[in-house]
This record gives sequence, C-alpha cells and structure tokens, in this order.
Amino acid sequence: MAQKRRVVRGLDLVEERLFTLASEYPGVLGEACLATLAAGGKRVRPLLTLLCSRRGEPVGDPVLRGAVAVELVHMATLVHDDVLDRAELRRGRPTVAHQYGAGIAVSAGNYLLARAFSELVGAGATAAVDLLSATAVGLSEGEVLQRAEAHDVSIGPDAYVRRCERKTADLFSAACSLGALLSGAPEAASVVAEYGRLIGLAFQVFDDILDCSGEQAATGKRPGTDIRDGTITLPLIYALEGRPELAETLRRPAVSDADVDAVLSAVADSGALGRARDDALRYIAEARAVLARCPDTVERGLLEQVAAQVVDRYS
Amino acid sequence: MAQKRRVVRGLDLVEERLFTLASEYPGVLGEACLATLAAGGKRVRPLLTLLCSRRGEPVGDPVLRGAVAVELVHMATLVHDDVLDRAELRRGRPTVAHQYGAGIAVSAGNYLLARAFSELVGAGATAAVDLLSATAVGLSEGEVLQRAEAHDVSIGPDAYVRRCERKTADLFSAACSLGALLSGAPEAASVVAEYGRLIGLAFQVFDDILDCSGEQAATGKRPGTDIRDGTITLPLIYALEGRPELAETLRRPAVSDADVDAVLSAVADSGALGRARDDALRYIAEARAVLARCPDTVERGLLEQVAAQVVDRYS
Repeated sequence: MAQKRRVVRGLDLVEERLFTLASEYPGVLGEACLATLAAGGKRVRPLLTLLCSRRGEPVGDPVLRGAVAVELVHMATLVHDDVLDRAELRRGRPTVAHQYGAGIAVSAGNYLLARAFSELVGAGATAAVDLLSATAVGLSEGEVLQRAEAHDVSIGPDAYVRRCERKTADLFSAACSLGALLSGAPEAASVVAEYGRLIGLAFQVFDDILDCSGEQAATGKRPGTDIRDGTITLPLIYALEGRPELAETLRRPAVSDADVDAVLSAVADSGALGRARDDALRYIAEARAVLARCPDTVERGLLEQVAAQVVDRYS
Repeated sequence: MAQKRRVVRGLDLVEERLFTLASEYPGVLGEACLATLAAGGKRVRPLLTLLCSRRGEPVGDPVLRGAVAVELVHMATLVHDDVLDRAELRRGRPTVAHQYGAGIAVSAGNYLLARAFSELVGAGATAAVDLLSATAVGLSEGEVLQRAEAHDVSIGPDAYVRRCERKTADLFSAACSLGALLSGAPEAASVVAEYGRLIGLAFQVFDDILDCSGEQAATGKRPGTDIRDGTITLPLIYALEGRPELAETLRRPAVSDADVDAVLSAVADSGALGRARDDALRYIAEARAVLARCPDTVERGLLEQVAAQVVDRYS
C-alpha cells in the first residue's frame, strides 16, 4: 500500500543521509561514526517521526531532517554510554569506545550530537530545535540519574519511570512530535508526543525484562548487564519486594557470574518478569487509546503496528 | 564611560544566567556544573559577543542568550577534555572528571552542550543556531585532530593552525558573529567573525607558549602539559626545526619530569618561543586591521582593548 511505500522510501533516505554525514569525515572520526551506523539498530525513532508526519504526501525535507536528527541524538548517547559503561560489545560488534578508545568515542558522540542540531536547524522550525535541545538536556540528566541511583535498592517504580522518561521515553516522544511539527501538522504534536512517551516506556521496560531473561542472540549483549552495572530496573524492583535478600548482591559494586545467575533465576522465580510485562502491556494499551484520539494526519494504522511490534519483540 | 558600563552589566547578566542554569539541577549534575562555573575563567567569549553586538543600546535578550550559549559550549569542551586528558586540576581546582568521575563529567558536558542550544534557540534566530552547531561539530573534529596528531612530530605550522581553528578560533569567531547576528546587525557578522578568528588563533598560540614557559600560578596548570600529552604545538614545531633530536622524546607515549624539563629548556634556548610570539603578534596586528574595516555598530575601541589584553596576558 502507498502509505507503507512512502515510509519505506523515507527510511531509505534517512539511512542514506546518515551514511553521508558519517562518511563526510575522513579519518578515525568518520570510521567511528560509520561503525556506529553499520552496527544497525532498528531506526525506531526515525520510523516514528515518519509515521507521525502528515500522511498522503511525499516525505518532505524538514521531516527527513527531524528523523535524521533523532537518530543522531540516539547514536550519540549510545557511543557515550559505551564509554561510561566500558562496554566492549554492542549488537554483537565492538563498541567505538572499545575499538578506538574513550577519547575518540567522546568526540564522536559530541560530533553526532552537534550534527543532530545542524540537521534540524536546516528544517527552519524553532519549536523543533527547542524540543530536541530540551530532550537532549533530559537525556544527560537521565544518564546521571542512572549512575546516581546505581546499586540503590530502595528506589521504587515511580523513580524508575522518571528515569526511563528522561533516558528513553522523551526521545521517542520528541521523535513523534517532530514528525507532526515538521510536516505542518502542529495540532497533532501533543497527542503523538503522548503516544511516543508511552511506547518509549514500554520499549524500555521490555528491554529491561530482556536483560533479565533474554539470550545474547536477541539483544546482542550479555544478559544480566543491568545487574552487573547496578542498574535497578523494574523486574529487579518487583523481585526485591518479595525477596529482600537480593539487595545484598545488587548493592555490591562488583558481582561474579555466579551471583548474576543466582539473581537472574531468583527474578525468574519471583514472578517479577510477569508483573513488569503487565506494566509494559498497560503502556501499550494506553498508547493505543491515545492513538484513537489522533487526528487523521498521522499514519494511525502503521503506528498501531509499531505498538504491536514492540510487544512482539519480547514474546 | 557608558559603553563600558553596558558591557560590564551584560557580563553580570551572563554570569547570573550561567549560575541559574547550573543551579537548576539538584544533585551531583548541578554541583558539577557549579564547580565548573565557579572555577571561573575569563569569560572572553561572552565578552566578545557583547562587544560585537550593536552598541549604544541596552544589551538585548537575544545577545545575552548568544553570550551564555558560547560560554556553555566552551565549558562543555573543558569538562570533556579533562575526562580525556585525565586532568586532575584546572585553574588550580580539581576537575569535574577528577572529583565526580568520568561518568558524571561526560554527562555534565553533554548537559552543558545541549543547554547551549536551548539557550540559543530562545533567541529565535535560525542562522545563529546553525552557526553554533557547525562550530560545535568543528570542536569535536578539533579534539579528534589533536588526539590523532598526538606525538606526530612531522606536523608543520599549517596543520597546527588548522587544528587551532577548529579547537579554539572558530568558537571565538562564532562568539563575535553571534553578537552581530543577534542584535540585528548582520552586515557586521562576517567582518567580526574574521576578527574573532584571528584573536582566537593568537590566544591559542600564547596559551601554547605559556605551557612551554609559564609558571603554574599564571595558567593554573603545570607547564609542559602539552609535552606530556604529545600535543605538538607551535613552539615545539619551531624548536624541532633546529633541534630534530627532540623528536625522540616527543614521540614517546610517556615521559619523565626530567624529560619534560629537558625539552622545555631546549625550546627556550632554540628561539622557538620568540618565533611563535611573532606569529601571535602578527595575528593580533591582522585582527586590528580587520577592526578598522568594522562598521560603527560594534564597540571598536573595546575590541582594540581585548586585542591588547590578549598580548598582555603573555608579557
């Protein structure tokens, strides 16, 4: 169908543009950016931008810029996170930090972040740049929150949700808003923003469940990473309610593989994964309800499919 | 005189705004930003923005935003540089990276960078945001260049100047342009940009000379830092011409204090400091010549004084 073709074509253009931006740089910075790009990723955020733009017309240059900008911001946070987490692998490939060193990785992240703004400025919409910069400010707060709250076994679901909003959901939300704002449909911006926030929360909760239960093949990283880093995610919060003795391990700055396995099986036995999953499904249901209130300008049917795919990813 | 009062008042407002932005954040991110601010700095970049704005009127909100934005970008690069250089002191105080750890420092830098864009977007001038993002892109290239060229004793003065443009001069240049652009004097932008670039180059060359000759009291850091990091600066490039045997030490990834002292005295004896100083003075002279072509809208007299102060800093 025509809508789908329009979006697929749009995603191709986003991909091309990302590769052009990365290859513009000779030397190691370009290499590092290309490596980050080549590692793939689902391009969920640009997809959301395209789907929330005014339908029935070819995707315009401002919308493409918005889609590219949100992915660049996302890539920047990945590159920086891998520096801070000293991660060696992401999606099964060596991270920029591991391959090129922390120096190149910090600069590559800064480059990608600054580039995001250059791209978006070209769209000529002040409100859009404003939104992206506020979101980027929130992202750095989210990173700090995650580190400040590391090993803090007293945090509850509310603090967890607040952190996920900054770290993940606000960028999903911005991706959606930008689609509306940059295609001359500002009336749709606030409702798609809410849809995006809910999808982002669901996405993060599923991601955190996968880390407690998934295989490396599904996520490209070792399960139990959050336990190793002391990131107290929703499944861990729920598991701690019934099994407070897990706190001792989760508080420790370093844990053995055996410790991680013990926590993982305790979490699985506690019913925490099911409770977390119910929360994620509730976010998805709320997102669908919001979608029903969306104006006709957005690709409602395809946004329904995205909601379904976020769920499928876990099942 | 009234012009000077206007600028002093403007700098006070910039300072207030920077403190407000930093203190808006509770917790460790706010502390880290406040520490960076409190460490002072000369606020040369905001000063340039104010001096290049249309004179004879109170400093408007857009110009203040521009001045705040350039300082925030500068602060972000300092915080990130200290992570990469593992620096423990800056201006005689512990660095954010040393005091709070690399994680907080990377996030604080990202926060400051993203904040710079939020500030500037509020000024409502697309060209200004465009300029700042291009400059921020260049800054990350400059950082990468500096690392890529570390210990490379074959680089000449041209490569050095290219690196200084990205790393320093382009932000000075942007600071000046923003003053013109954001005060409704776009006709002055390109000429003040050139003045700023030249002042920035002179500033960097003097800084590099100070690192080869200065006392810790003058710079707040140990002399010889560039030699330790393998950053081949102009004085070292000139010294290498007559004393190729220095290459052996400068190529080494790690050098002793005695090695650093030996290089420092060889540089002093070689006449390289005088040659570098002549280059810096030539940039200052060119900057003055550019100033003579500036339209009346800018504070020409005070910009002359800035040029003189950059020289005084070294003598």
